[in-house]
Amino acid sequence: MPKKDSALKIIPLGGLDGIGKNMTVFEYGNDMVMIDAGLMFPDDEQPGIDLILPDYTYVLENEDKLRGIIITHGHEDHTGALPYLLQDLTHKVPIYSSKLTLGIIEGKLAEHNIKSPKFREVQDGSTITLGAFNITFFAMTHSIPAAFGVFMNTPAGNVMHTGDFKLDQTPIDGVRPNYAAINRFAAEGIDVLLSDSTNATRPGFTPSEAAVGPALRHIIKNAPGRVFVASFSSHIHRLQQICDASVAVGRKVVVTGRSMVTNTKVARELGYLRIADENIIDAYDLEKLPDEQIVVLCTGSQGEPLSALARMANGEHKSLSIHEGDTVIISANPIPGNEKSVQAIINSLSKLGCDIYDKSQALVHVSGHGSQEELKLMLAMVKPRNFMPVHGEAQHLRAHAKLAQQVGIPERNIFILDNGDSLEVRHGKARRGPSVDSGVVYVDGLSITDANPVVLRDRQRLAQDGVITCVVAIRSRNHSVDTIDLSGRGVSFATDEVLMGDARDLVRSQVERLEKGNGASIDTVRKGVRNSLSNFLWSKTHTRPMVIPVVMEV
Amino acid sequence: MPKKDSALKIIPLGGLDGIGKNMTVFEYGNDMVMIDAGLMFPDDEQPGIDLILPDYTYVLENEDKLRGIIITHGHEDHTGALPYLLQDLTHKVPIYSSKLTLGIIEGKLAEHNIKSPKFREVQDGSTITLGAFNITFFAMTHSIPAAFGVFMNTPAGNVMHTGDFKLDQTPIDGVRPNYAAINRFAAEGIDVLLSDSTNATRPGFTPSEAAVGPALRHIIKNAPGRVFVASFSSHIHRLQQICDASVAVGRKVVVTGRSMVTNTKVARELGYLRIADENIIDAYDLEKLPDEQIVVLCTGSQGEPLSALARMANGEHKSLSIHEGDTVIISANPIPGNEKSVQAIINSLSKLGCDIYDKSQALVHVSGHGSQEELKLMLAMVKPRNFMPVHGEAQHLRAHAKLAQQVGIPERNIFILDNGDSLEVRHGKARRGPSVDSGVVYVDGLSITDANPVVLRDRQRLAQDGVITCVVAIRSRNHSVDTIDLSGRGVSFATDEVLMGDARDLVRSQVERLEKGNGASIDTVRKGVRNSLSNFLWSKTHTRPMVIPVVMEV
Repeated sequence: MPKKDSALKIIPLGGLDGIGKNMTVFEYGNDMVMIDAGLMFPDDEQPGIDLILPDYTYVLENEDKLRGIIITHGHEDHTGALPYLLQDLTHKVPIYSSKLTLGIIEGKLAEHNIKSPKFREVQDGSTITLGAFNITFFAMTHSIPAAFGVFMNTPAGNVMHTGDFKLDQTPIDGVRPNYAAINRFAAEGIDVLLSDSTNATRPGFTPSEAAVGPALRHIIKNAPGRVFVASFSSHIHRLQQICDASVAVGRKVVVTGRSMVTNTKVARELGYLRIADENIIDAYDLEKLPDEQIVVLCTGSQGEPLSALARMANGEHKSLSIHEGDTVIISANPIPGNEKSVQAIINSLSKLGCDIYDKSQALVHVSGHGSQEELKLMLAMVKPRNFMPVHGEAQHLRAHAKLAQQVGIPERNIFILDNGDSLEVRHGKARRGPSVDSGVVYVDGLSITDANPVVLRDRQRLAQDGVITCVVAIRSRNHSVDTIDLSGRGVSFATDEVLMGDARDLVRSQVERLEKGNGASIDTVRKGVRNSLSNFLWSKTHTRPMVIPVVMEV
Repeated sequence: MPKKDSALKIIPLGGLDGIGKNMTVFEYGNDMVMIDAGLMFPDDEQPGIDLILPDYTYVLENEDKLRGIIITHGHEDHTGALPYLLQDLTHKVPIYSSKLTLGIIEGKLAEHNIKSPKFREVQDGSTITLGAFNITFFAMTHSIPAAFGVFMNTPAGNVMHTGDFKLDQTPIDGVRPNYAAINRFAAEGIDVLLSDSTNATRPGFTPSEAAVGPALRHIIKNAPGRVFVASFSSHIHRLQQICDASVAVGRKVVVTGRSMVTNTKVARELGYLRIADENIIDAYDLEKLPDEQIVVLCTGSQGEPLSALARMANGEHKSLSIHEGDTVIISANPIPGNEKSVQAIINSLSKLGCDIYDKSQALVHVSGHGSQEELKLMLAMVKPRNFMPVHGEAQHLRAHAKLAQQVGIPERNIFILDNGDSLEVRHGKARRGPSVDSGVVYVDGLSITDANPVVLRDRQRLAQDGVITCVVAIRSRNHSVDTIDLSGRGVSFATDEVLMGDARDLVRSQVERLEKGNGASIDTVRKGVRNSLSNFLWSKTHTRPMVIPVVMEV
């Protein structure tokens, strides 16, 4: 039994240094609950890395306490670490979420050959007990159906986690945020609120998802030929609106792109996406229909080079191609970092003679995250004693903290944490606690390791200036140079025979100088080769390729 | 003398495949005039490349015809190829532009040790004759002062080139677009209009530069401590407004960042930027002033890692640091591709405890390019017989062409060209002509060469998966393996001794198999090593590092 004055510890392991890899641990006595287990996608700073996970060593070390994993919704920044975490845990820990979210997770786990996970389906209003935690789920609106917020009652205090949310009064599936539950919890008293900060710098109120429908229908109705709509495959409400608009104007829908095919299948089976079978046709049957009766729902809204839209735009899709007279709707916003890839596809499509609609020309996308007015409204409804902004970059967390001050929460009760920091709650009071091991883990092919800055720095350097290998074979019997082999990759001057010849001569004379007399250690020669070659190349080319010297005695 | 029915040829060498490296050649008989000579900055697709230039071989081959180079304004995408072009030309060709533009170019040429260029200063309304070309300059408004449009009268037809422009009725320096001249040329008849397409997808009318003033003044006035404003150093009107706001609220201005120091100096000397000496102070004198009397004007609005703002945010600036209570204004938009770098700096500043204002929170930036209503207005004023959208990516050119159709220009008279294409104008009629050599040239250190796709592909591959060098020394006398040296850079498994040992064993047995009997050619062994190592690493790591095999006989 925990002592009477035990603290509830809130430990974010991810999600506070960017939009991604959300994972927060809640611990009281011998009981631990995790909310979300997400991944993050790498950017230019992490070349060649496939995925980034939060370092969840702390969870593994305390596995015996872990009573359950709660997933608020089905986006990868909330679910994507699960395949890795589940394989690292020695016990089967139950996973609590909505039917749709579990359906999406099931598919992902199957890809990793993870069999029969312990799924526990919950609904809006479901209450579960995990050790000292009494947990209630409540409906929230977001850019994926069946998203939850979480209320936790513990002996040390009450906590609410909004999950990702916007406050949509006219959601496509009619499932509004459960304001009654939120206000009931508020009446019980919330000691700490954790709330989504993604749009904390954006003034106003995010428009309802329903606002997108008329623009989609208008474009689809008036398009002279086929219409291609690229969107997030998990954005079932958006897909529903695209399907509804298509059917309303007498068009059939074709679905293409792996995740789009998978997610529409799951969502239709589970009853989240409704379109009659006769209105969905196979890509191979398209030729039977006139262009003006076709809508193609596809992946590629982020400019991904292997996506359906990119393949179609480049004439590399197995069954579909885009041509003059087609209309393309990008029903999504580029995620920061993807702007140029998206623009490249738009340019390819423009050259083909397509009309393109994106957010800048028509209301074909709205955010799934609440803006400042919604965040303040949430704070005003919940009236938390303490506030911890989550799910955002430093700018967003700070902006959210300022909003909380505006709503009347004293600055001393607002806690901007870093991943691995902890917040301790006792008798309604919160204060910072000790930090735990945290960080990031890189998935690089089959290797899943702590971030190694040397590897990434080397890759960036290789990308900048290429590599020169210089192999020197020295005859051990007389310290003379047997062979010098010099080759470059990713360097503009590799085919400049004069320069490469001069470089070879330089290495030879450098080695001969070092070896004169009794010879030198291999290490000395290696360093000498590297330095002289680097300096020579800088002086001749003003580039600094990575020099890999290999010195061997033969 | 050209024949009576000679054509005026319009040949864009750059600027039609993206925002950058603008360069257009106009040729009639034995006379050639160039408008703009710009560069483009590389993106992720060109790792390690310093700059991208248009391939101007065609100009060098016809140098004897080149009568002059006209520069519309001082931005690098219109001037940056000049240092390279001037060095490649054998004669001194005169350069025509405004006082400010020439002042900016002079500084750049000096950096390249180009002495006493043939500068010819022109004003709004200036008319010059270059061979068969009668050329008139007219004032336009843009995000840099002293920008021109160009009207050309030739025996084969009249052409107008807008340069980069917006239609600003309340420009900071009072120099409005010369509508009278534009309408006078229109009355003479314009056979071809070339017009700026940058914002052709943006509805409405771009706000006046003056719209930014009140927001800047409000933030600067109410900031509790120092205010740092990052902007483009060539945006003299913006700098003027920042200086004016600072002086109006009793603050002194400090200028930092190399290009900001240079450009403010040039602009003040030439009379384009007006601020009294007593209101500008040196960074080292800052400590004498209280925080609330300071504004720092700095570079870094694009998140450049070596810029003043980045250095200050990271505590690496020689004289200034940013701390809690400071306010930072990003008075610029991130250029596509720079979004993440800018956001990274904003996050660093947020962690320091700064208040940050960018375009999403206050009107601290407006574009320098006209939106759809301005583009249509220009088309309506000019009433060109033929239209050629320039200065944009494929999407922008197509959007601009659609606007032209809306204004009544028949589709057959609208020409979307690629770089290197030509348009021939005769008796007011335009048609596509033959193409000329064109393309891009990369500046990579000291090497200035045609784009080499192999080099860039290798760099991207090196960045993705790193490099493995495998050196095999074979004793020529008995075909046995003398030494195997295996090393990796930028690979996560380079320190995995078991894996590296297994790889070495694999290479040894592969080489021994190949060398059995009479031995094998070095090339055969090299290929064998590369293939077996690549396959082994893929099977063990699911990565594909570049394998550089070096096989030598000793």
